[in-house]
Amino acid sequence: MTDHDDSRAKVTELVKDAKICMFTTMTADGRHVSRPMGLQEVEFDGDLWFFAFEDSPKVAEIRQHPQVNVSFQAGNKAWVSVSGTATTVHDRAKAEQLWTPLLKGWFPDGIDTPGLTLIKVNAESAEYWESAHGKVVTLIAYAKSALTKSPPDVGENREVDLT
Amino acid sequence: MTDHDDSRAKVTELVKDAKICMFTTMTADGRHVSRPMGLQEVEFDGDLWFFAFEDSPKVAEIRQHPQVNVSFQAGNKAWVSVSGTATTVHDRAKAEQLWTPLLKGWFPDGIDTPGLTLIKVNAESAEYWESAHGKVVTLIAYAKSALTKSPPDVGENREVDLT
Repeated sequence: MTDHDDSRAKVTELVKDAKICMFTTMTADGRHVSRPMGLQEVEFDGDLWFFAFEDSPKVAEIRQHPQVNVSFQAGNKAWVSVSGTATTVHDRAKAEQLWTPLLKGWFPDGIDTPGLTLIKVNAESAEYWESAHGKVVTLIAYAKSALTKSPPDVGENREVDLT
Repeated sequence: MTDHDDSRAKVTELVKDAKICMFTTMTADGRHVSRPMGLQEVEFDGDLWFFAFEDSPKVAEIRQHPQVNVSFQAGNKAWVSVSGTATTVHDRAKAEQLWTPLLKGWFPDGIDTPGLTLIKVNAESAEYWESAHGKVVTLIAYAKSALTKSPPDVGENREVDLT
């Protein structure tokens, strides 16, 4: 396995541990708003996927400001931040792959629920912190094309330039 | 106690449970980035307070885009999102009130650490969700001037207009 595969496997493991994330978008009037959303159970390949309603505020928000943040806590001692670009996708095969019975609470008719859409977040950068000895330190920073292993830096996490 | 006091007390309780939040800012190139930060241990009065370094990326980011989001998970079944405006504040008495020994890992000289600043997030809206019966539902939405009790709505949390 390459470092890049290791990094993807780590994000997959953290996503599976967390189950629920906070999904942050920008409103038309420039506020940052978050709401809890279920995290996918499939392997992370650089994209995160969510189910939503076409007419929901978050879908309107990502159409106006596609840049979003997905953050979550995995267990009591790990935090992940993913910055990326969100788009809506209509892909029945993908919806079938991602569907889990737990989603039935939100979408009673499954993937045939009227107004259902997928949101794809194409991750441009991801960072991962772990708490150790009472401090939170940056452990890895992931980019689609390269893995950056940051040394622990208690002051501020390192930004990864992906352009 | 009024509903408003109840709501503040609830946010104080959740902040104390969580200890660490994700603090989301916007970068100069328009990405949303989050990083874990320690939550205050004092009572919530409508503002959230953080310690930071004057020369850190997050301080540069809030000076350019003061709108931020603070989100956190309290225990395994509650999530909070606070939208607000961030400013830096230099106030020694406030720093003394907020200081906890845990912060020494980041700021070795305590509140006399060179370059230390406080970040104040003036909460414009806050929302709180709890997981029940396998679903995540909005329980309360808090606004500085009024409390809105939203009915559980599994589709999308309700936006609170505070203007």
